Amino acid sequence: MKQFEPPSGTRDFLAPEVEAREAAFATIRRVFERYGFEPLQTPAFERLETLTGKYGEEGDKLVFKILRRGEHEASGEADLALRYDLTVPLARVAAEHSGQLPMPYKRYAIAPVWRADRPGKGRFREFTQCDLDVVGSSSPLADAEVVCALADVLDELGVPEFTFLVNSRRALAGLLEAYQVPEALGAGTLITLDKLDKLRPDAVAEELVGRGLPHDTAEALVGDLNADDAVERTRKALASNDAGRAGLDEVDQFLALVDGQVPAERIAFTPRLVRGLEYYTGVIFEVVAPGTPGSIASGGRYDGLIARLGGQDAPACGGSLGIERILPLIGEGSDRARVADVAVPIMGEDLAGDAFRLAAKLRRAGLRVVTYLGASGKLGRQLKWASDRGARYAAILGPDERAADEVTLRDMGSGEQARVALAEAPDWVSRRS
Amino acid sequence: MKQFEPPSGTRDFLAPEVEAREAAFATIRRVFERYGFEPLQTPAFERLETLTGKYGEEGDKLVFKILRRGEHEASGEADLALRYDLTVPLARVAAEHSGQLPMPYKRYAIAPVWRADRPGKGRFREFTQCDLDVVGSSSPLADAEVVCALADVLDELGVPEFTFLVNSRRALAGLLEAYQVPEALGAGTLITLDKLDKLRPDAVAEELVGRGLPHDTAEALVGDLNADDAVERTRKALASNDAGRAGLDEVDQFLALVDGQVPAERIAFTPRLVRGLEYYTGVIFEVVAPGTPGSIASGGRYDGLIARLGGQDAPACGGSLGIERILPLIGEGSDRARVADVAVPIMGEDLAGDAFRLAAKLRRAGLRVVTYLGASGKLGRQLKWASDRGARYAAILGPDERAADEVTLRDMGSGEQARVALAEAPDWVSRRS
Repeated sequence: MKQFEPPSGTRDFLAPEVEAREAAFATIRRVFERYGFEPLQTPAFERLETLTGKYGEEGDKLVFKILRRGEHEASGEADLALRYDLTVPLARVAAEHSGQLPMPYKRYAIAPVWRADRPGKGRFREFTQCDLDVVGSSSPLADAEVVCALADVLDELGVPEFTFLVNSRRALAGLLEAYQVPEALGAGTLITLDKLDKLRPDAVAEELVGRGLPHDTAEALVGDLNADDAVERTRKALASNDAGRAGLDEVDQFLALVDGQVPAERIAFTPRLVRGLEYYTGVIFEVVAPGTPGSIASGGRYDGLIARLGGQDAPACGGSLGIERILPLIGEGSDRARVADVAVPIMGEDLAGDAFRLAAKLRRAGLRVVTYLGASGKLGRQLKWASDRGARYAAILGPDERAADEVTLRDMGSGEQARVALAEAPDWVSRRS
Repeated sequence: MKQFEPPSGTRDFLAPEVEAREAAFATIRRVFERYGFEPLQTPAFERLETLTGKYGEEGDKLVFKILRRGEHEASGEADLALRYDLTVPLARVAAEHSGQLPMPYKRYAIAPVWRADRPGKGRFREFTQCDLDVVGSSSPLADAEVVCALADVLDELGVPEFTFLVNSRRALAGLLEAYQVPEALGAGTLITLDKLDKLRPDAVAEELVGRGLPHDTAEALVGDLNADDAVERTRKALASNDAGRAGLDEVDQFLALVDGQVPAERIAFTPRLVRGLEYYTGVIFEVVAPGTPGSIASGGRYDGLIARLGGQDAPACGGSLGIERILPLIGEGSDRARVADVAVPIMGEDLAGDAFRLAAKLRRAGLRVVTYLGASGKLGRQLKWASDRGARYAAILGPDERAADEVTLRDMGSGEQARVALAEAPDWVSRRS
């Protein structure tokens, strides 16, 4: 019934999905911590003014705003808003604890964010972001750590195929200079070039001309970036000016650092990579996987952003995993989680207490145990329930068993049964689980 | 700076607090799963109409409402609201998946809820609830499982002292009958009796008289419930009518089931226990701990509530841990988390790549490793940083070490150093960590 569905664009996660998601998050946390990143948790909502003006006009429209309360509710005004990403809260915390945080501050966060986007396939209004960032370091090692940590995560999650596309914002500046793109058209040109992975080359060239680029320039730029030997052509072009050489150096230094950590076939200098967000200043990257549109991870260096968000001026870089896109790649969820190791039927009201104590004994051995809480007194019905719960054993305590201080342990797979002394039951099951 | 603080009533959790909290949540999850409870995760917000009218007039005022979006924003109306508890979302899910959920459905949830309460000491606007509930069983085993699971959690969290206070709503009905409280005054009488743990007995009696109770009745009720032998007096009174006998039976059957699971000195029939919420129908309980005002856990049976919340009619019982009150009892957080096993200083730009590869090698052995990302070239400064990060060892790779394919491993506690072959460094550290 529609009225009982979760709100549009949000999801309920039952046990199998929770387990698949939490297992992935545990892997992510383990890898991030291995790199010395610390967890940070911030509130679900921020003061409205903390968020507004940070995501551009389009982004601001997608912020979920919270109505003022009490006597102010009638004003129809908002004073709080659900967080839109994990970066602005990081900037706020960096500003608040300025001087007390270990510097460089390496933090990770795995948490839901909310965007009032039109819901669609794989696009949700509540979804989880997994971010790691280094605030306060301009060392290329910081960029390399972010990328190596992400590569380790994808590897340990079992993502079968993925490729890191790498470029540099300095290199892109050098590229514009090499192709003599007028400075006023630079930003627009990059926005259009970013579509080279989605649109046909001539459509991109046409859009560039529409932006005011000379026809020849547009053709040359698109042709070179799209050529089989795009990397060679770009390297040659970049070598012609200072910005280009600085960008190439940046990329090469970065690739040398990750060499041997990320397999060479999984990482590539990609001159056409732009990244939509305009705040990047150095190395940028995206991770693509066959069959998944868009990217499954991305990030880059964004010196200056923390200061713009209200924090102290600090160089920074980071990355983010598109976990909602990654989970389907690694086979999210099974039909039904195995909830119990042992199921304990209740063989009559007067035996309930003994059954309950047996369950407690088994739990003390660390086993997951369910006792029958339904109303049926029939063993067959209760064994069906045990098997539905995925139990490996049923521990049956009837009047005979109780009189002998024993329990019948039934293998729910084979149907084989064994009578075991009550005191030995936990060991007996543990040895076989 | 005030502008960078989290919104009123919310908190940022830095690494040490996150670690303490997550460790507690992991213990709670482990115990709940041992009892066969399954995780359920629902969205942070629900449709406004799902929440309104569920928490009483006072509760409704504390709901955080979310403004409509886009063209509807100007209306000042809300259509969504942040969840106020985890019970209403459970009822919605039970209604949505009616027939598909395993029945009885045993679910747990550990998640933040939001209430626009006036923030104060220990009272937050965003706080975590840890709930476990059984939907679809009227078996007393279900009540017993909830209480045993909570007792196991408190025990395994290391809460030094706690007591379960147990009563029954049926027993309370019998009590009112035994003391000839007029039916119209029953609910009000219970609300006032609930204050016996906070107010002086004569103040409670006075309030009862104010509600219209005869002076003698009020005195007798308060006197008996507050007497040293309150349990004996109440048992005698309850034995005089059907409701009272049914209530006593319910309590005794419950106590017999948990006997041996929860130590006898940690659980007690408590005739004056009422529980504020009016929806309880059977066994009710609260857990108190010395030095903590109010309760650290509570719950009971609430047959009928799921149907009232919109779900199918189903008997249910459950409990909730007051984790924000429990954490201070078990010593939340340390000054600074130990972030790294090994810190790797950078002994010059040309050695950065080798240091980075050494770090990767150590991480592959499962060690948590930080490389120096700051700007200082001085070893002393970098060793200070290593020690601030809580690293057990510093792995120093200078020109001499590199020439010999070795690394100097410095014990950050004792200052002792050893030169070790590069290939053997991971093993060397792992053996000593």
